[in-house]
Amino acid sequence: MAHKHTRIELLTLGDELLLGLTANSHLTFVGAQFARRGLTLARNVTATDDAEVIARQFAESWAAADVVITTGGLGPTCDDRTREAVAGVLGQRLVFDEGAAAAIRGRFARMGREMTANNLKQAMRPERGEFLPNPNGTAPGIWVEQDGKVLCMLPGPPGELQPMFVAQVLPRLAARGLLAEGEAYVQVRTAGIGESMLETRLAPVLARHGDALSVAWCAHPGAVDCRLSSPDGRLGRAELEGVARECAALLGDDFLCFGHDSPARVAADLLRSRKHMLAVAEAATGGMLANRFAEEAGAEGVFAGGCVCPGEASMMRLLGIPEDRPPRHGAAGGETAVAMAAGAAKRLGAGYALSLTDAREDGGAPAGAAIFMGLHSPRGTWAKRLDFPASRETANQRAVNAALDWLRRELLRTRPAPAACGRGGNL
Amino acid sequence: MAHKHTRIELLTLGDELLLGLTANSHLTFVGAQFARRGLTLARNVTATDDAEVIARQFAESWAAADVVITTGGLGPTCDDRTREAVAGVLGQRLVFDEGAAAAIRGRFARMGREMTANNLKQAMRPERGEFLPNPNGTAPGIWVEQDGKVLCMLPGPPGELQPMFVAQVLPRLAARGLLAEGEAYVQVRTAGIGESMLETRLAPVLARHGDALSVAWCAHPGAVDCRLSSPDGRLGRAELEGVARECAALLGDDFLCFGHDSPARVAADLLRSRKHMLAVAEAATGGMLANRFAEEAGAEGVFAGGCVCPGEASMMRLLGIPEDRPPRHGAAGGETAVAMAAGAAKRLGAGYALSLTDAREDGGAPAGAAIFMGLHSPRGTWAKRLDFPASRETANQRAVNAALDWLRRELLRTRPAPAACGRGGNL
Repeated sequence: MAHKHTRIELLTLGDELLLGLTANSHLTFVGAQFARRGLTLARNVTATDDAEVIARQFAESWAAADVVITTGGLGPTCDDRTREAVAGVLGQRLVFDEGAAAAIRGRFARMGREMTANNLKQAMRPERGEFLPNPNGTAPGIWVEQDGKVLCMLPGPPGELQPMFVAQVLPRLAARGLLAEGEAYVQVRTAGIGESMLETRLAPVLARHGDALSVAWCAHPGAVDCRLSSPDGRLGRAELEGVARECAALLGDDFLCFGHDSPARVAADLLRSRKHMLAVAEAATGGMLANRFAEEAGAEGVFAGGCVCPGEASMMRLLGIPEDRPPRHGAAGGETAVAMAAGAAKRLGAGYALSLTDAREDGGAPAGAAIFMGLHSPRGTWAKRLDFPASRETANQRAVNAALDWLRRELLRTRPAPAACGRGGNL
Repeated sequence: MAHKHTRIELLTLGDELLLGLTANSHLTFVGAQFARRGLTLARNVTATDDAEVIARQFAESWAAADVVITTGGLGPTCDDRTREAVAGVLGQRLVFDEGAAAAIRGRFARMGREMTANNLKQAMRPERGEFLPNPNGTAPGIWVEQDGKVLCMLPGPPGELQPMFVAQVLPRLAARGLLAEGEAYVQVRTAGIGESMLETRLAPVLARHGDALSVAWCAHPGAVDCRLSSPDGRLGRAELEGVARECAALLGDDFLCFGHDSPARVAADLLRSRKHMLAVAEAATGGMLANRFAEEAGAEGVFAGGCVCPGEASMMRLLGIPEDRPPRHGAAGGETAVAMAAGAAKRLGAGYALSLTDAREDGGAPAGAAIFMGLHSPRGTWAKRLDFPASRETANQRAVNAALDWLRRELLRTRPAPAACGRGGNL
C-alpha cells in the first residue's frame, strides 16, 4: 500500500505553544484523525513564529516529507508570518484573492462587527495555491501541490482547524490515494493494571506469534492500551482480532474494551444496558467527575446529575448531610463519602452514585493526597480510601478514574453476561 | 546575559503523542516553566519511539542546542528505547546502577506489589550520567553533561516528570547560570475583544515606541494577550510596565489583568474582595463551569457549590424548578436560565450565580449551537442568548468563558474602585 510509506510532518507554529500558554491540541487532533485512517504522523515540530525560523524548519520538513501540514500564523496580526515564509521556500509569489477578501468582509458584516484593514492580509495566497474556505473564522486554509508533494496550511484556532481538516483536508488526501480505510491496529484497552504487569500477564499469548506480531503499550490516565499490529501483513485483521480476544479473556475484569472508548463511556454503556442512572457528589474534585462523565460518556439518559460541594454548607444544602456530622477528617472521611453517595442517589433518584471527598488529616499530613471515594449501588453503599503520592491535581484525576473503574466493576458484577453489554461486540 | 543565547530543545518521544492518544502536556509544562525564568524553548520535536528515529532526531538536536530535554521511553517495556538510542549517540556505554535498582525494588515493596523483572531495565544509565531520583514512580531521570552541553532525560508520566523538573532540573540549570530571575515580558491580558480589534485599538500606544518595543499577540479561549518586550533592552522593565498601564487604561473593562491569571481567577478575586460567593447551575455544560471555577480560581471561600442538571428531573430535584415549566425551548430558554441562576443562588446561599442551558430549537435548528446564560447578582437576575457557529464542545467552552466574563463585568460595576481588587497591583 502506497500510503504506508507516506511521510507526514506536522509543523505547529506559535510562541504560545513554546511558552506553554496553549496546549498543542493540533497534534492530538491531527494525529488521531490520521491514525484512524491508517497513517501515523512521522514527526511534529513546534517552532516559534519568527519568519526565518519558519522558513528554515519548513524547508527541512518539505525536503523530508510527502505531506506537510502547518498550523497557525495565518491570522491578521503582524506576527502572523507563515504564508510569507512558506511561499518564499516554495518560490511562489503571494497574490491577493478577491474572492477570499469578499468572504472575509461578508463574515464581519454578518456578525455586525467592524472589519479592521489588517484582516485583508488573510486574502493573500501563494500564486499556485488554493484557498480552503473557513466557515468558522476569517483566515482560510491554503492547499498547495508542488514537486509531487502536498502542503496544507491551516489556521490556529481549533474550532476553525478541526472542521476544515475533516471536511476538506481528509477528502483531498483520500482523493490522492493517501488514506487507508480502517485502523492500522487492533487495540486492547485495560483498566486497573500497570503497564509492566500487563506486559508480563499477556506475554504467553503474545509470544506465540513471534515477530509477525508487533505490540505497543500506551499508558493513559486510567487505562493502559495494548496495540496489536502486523507490520508486514503476515497476520490479517481476523487473526489480530483473535489475539485481542485471547488477551481480553486472560484479563477478566481488567479488560476495559476493544478500541478507544473511555472508562466513562464503558461505564455509561453498562449503566444503559442495565437501565440505571448515575448521580455524582464531589467535594474533592470540584465537578471534574461530573464533567468527565457528561463529556465522554455519551451520558444522555444515564446521567442523573451532579452536586459540587466545596464545603460543609453546600453538602448540607444539596445533599442533606447534617452540618454537625464529623466532617471529612481522618477515618470519618469514609463515613462522609458513604453519606454523600447515598445522599446523591436519593436526591437525584438514581440507582448508582459515586462520591469523592478529601481525607483531610488532622496534623502530620503525609506527602501526596488522600481521597475517599464512595459508591452506592442497589447492592449497598461503600467507601474506599485512595492514597496518591502525587500533586493534588494528579490525585484528583486518578481519583476520578478510580471511581469510574469501581463503578464499572460493580456493574459487571450485577449482570455477568458480557454479550449483553456490548463487550467484544465492537472489534 | 548568557542565558539569552541558550538554545533549548525539547524532544517528546512516543507514538501515543503522534497517534493523538495523549496530549503533549510536557510541552505546556516545560515551556511555561522556562518562560517564567526568562527562557523560551527554541523547538519541540515529537517523534516516534523507534530506536533509529530517536537516535537520528537526538543527534540533530544535540548538534544544534545547548540543552536537550527528552521525555518518555525510560519505562520498563520493550518499546522504551530512549536510553539505548541516546547513549549510542553520546558514545557512552550503559551501566547497571545497583542503587537505582534498590530504589525500584523498594518502591514495589512499599506499594505491596510484585516487581516484574523488566522493571530492572530502569536501573541502566549512561556510564558518565547521573540518575535523578523519582519519588513518584519507578523510572528515574538521567542527567548528562558532555561537550559543554546538558542532556536531561525525563520519564513520561506527567505526575513523575513535573515534580522532578521543578525540584531537580531547574536548580541544576540555575546552578549552571542558565536561568534568568524574572519573566522576559510584560503581559496585558484582555477579555471580550478579538485579536485584530485589540491590535487596532492599542496601535496608537504601541506605535510610539517604534522598534524598541516588541509586541506579540496570543489568543486563548476567553482571553487575548498582548505581550510586550524589548529584545535589545532599550526599554527597561519600568518602561514596559508603563506601556502596559497605558494599554490597560485604554481598554477599560476589556482589560482582564496583567500577567497570566485566568478569567475564573480574576472573577474569584473580585468576589473575594466584595465578600460574596458564587453558585453555578449547568444544564448545557455538564459541570465544566463548576470545574473551571474550582480548579483555576483558587475558589476556596468564594465557591458556594454547583448543580449539574442534565435533564428536567434534576432541575426540579436540585433547583426546585417546576417540571411543568416550558422547558428550555426557544425563547423560554431565557426564562429557564434566569430560574436556574436564581434557584442556585437561593439553594446554595450565594450572592452571585451563573447558569448555562441549551437553547434547544423546535425544528429548523441553525448551524452551530445556541446557549442561554443566566446571571444572578444582588442587583437583579438576567439571561442572554449566545449563538456559536461551532461544534457543541467548542460552544460549551466559549459559553463558560462568556459566563465568567459577564460575572466579572457585573462585579466591576458593583464597586468601581479598581485598586481594591488587585487590578494593576501585580505588575
